[in-house]
Amino acid sequence: MTDKEKKLIVELAPIVQQQLPKGLFLCVDGGTPNTMTIGWGGTGIFWGKPVFTVPIRPQRFTYPLIQKAQAFIISVPDEGALLQERMQAGTWSGRDGDKFKRLGLETVKGRVVDAPAIKSCKWQIECVVKAAVDLTTDNTSADVVSAMYPARDFHTLFMGEIVACYETER
Amino acid sequence: MTDKEKKLIVELAPIVQQQLPKGLFLCVDGGTPNTMTIGWGGTGIFWGKPVFTVPIRPQRFTYPLIQKAQAFIISVPDEGALLQERMQAGTWSGRDGDKFKRLGLETVKGRVVDAPAIKSCKWQIECVVKAAVDLTTDNTSADVVSAMYPARDFHTLFMGEIVACYETER
Repeated sequence: MTDKEKKLIVELAPIVQQQLPKGLFLCVDGGTPNTMTIGWGGTGIFWGKPVFTVPIRPQRFTYPLIQKAQAFIISVPDEGALLQERMQAGTWSGRDGDKFKRLGLETVKGRVVDAPAIKSCKWQIECVVKAAVDLTTDNTSADVVSAMYPARDFHTLFMGEIVACYETER
Repeated sequence: MTDKEKKLIVELAPIVQQQLPKGLFLCVDGGTPNTMTIGWGGTGIFWGKPVFTVPIRPQRFTYPLIQKAQAFIISVPDEGALLQERMQAGTWSGRDGDKFKRLGLETVKGRVVDAPAIKSCKWQIECVVKAAVDLTTDNTSADVVSAMYPARDFHTLFMGEIVACYETER
């Protein structure tokens, strides 16, 4: 991890925080390449390393893919870019076919991890999974459980060490 | 949560990310008021809300306090400020006496949560715990377990919904 990358992670922290409500792309290749829109997640430091944490529910097509790959790339669009694609990538499932193709999104290979990245996104955050922690009835507050998990389909928090962070070559 | 507070959370995300290696203060009152220095943690969005996540080991004096209080305040110093206090608050234990007094740090009451905040810190992030998730041998990668947890004293990740965020009145 270069100083330039460390600096960019700091610069992207507020961009991630601000853009999450509109969606960022999570890209993964666990046999099948796929992308999904994430609205929740965040940047931090754990074990002395920069870490991106993202919650995924077990019924998602992405779930077994990320479990198999143990790596993912967060593709961060420029503000206001790809708004329709973010919405559609969050609505469609990879079970119904190649989302990259359906969305018309060209991919490039990750620099460090074995996953695709969306070329038309301005920045890429490449991550290797270091922990996958399940929310449960026992470790989550009752108000969150009743509001968010009436079906008890708790998220797993995938904590990915950021191993590369850069502006996409276009 | 006002728009001004939401904006400040975004603005503080990079400041938190950059300053964590020097330490931020976590303040809590679970019967005994205490502060500890945190070097790990991060800002994100979970359950549609801004969340500050902080890992704490079970043997810390703060651990039962935060479990009891279910709330904490992150006091963020101005860059370069209180460097000695950050180091000492991370070295000393609350078991050996009132750290605020020993450090000469004046406190003010939290605006929303029942916890002290350090007055000489520029910003305050007040949090209510919504999940407390244990890292374990099973959910953490082998390299992190062997490097960070040879004694198997795994962190609990306390995920606190940010309920107030403001610049300290001084």
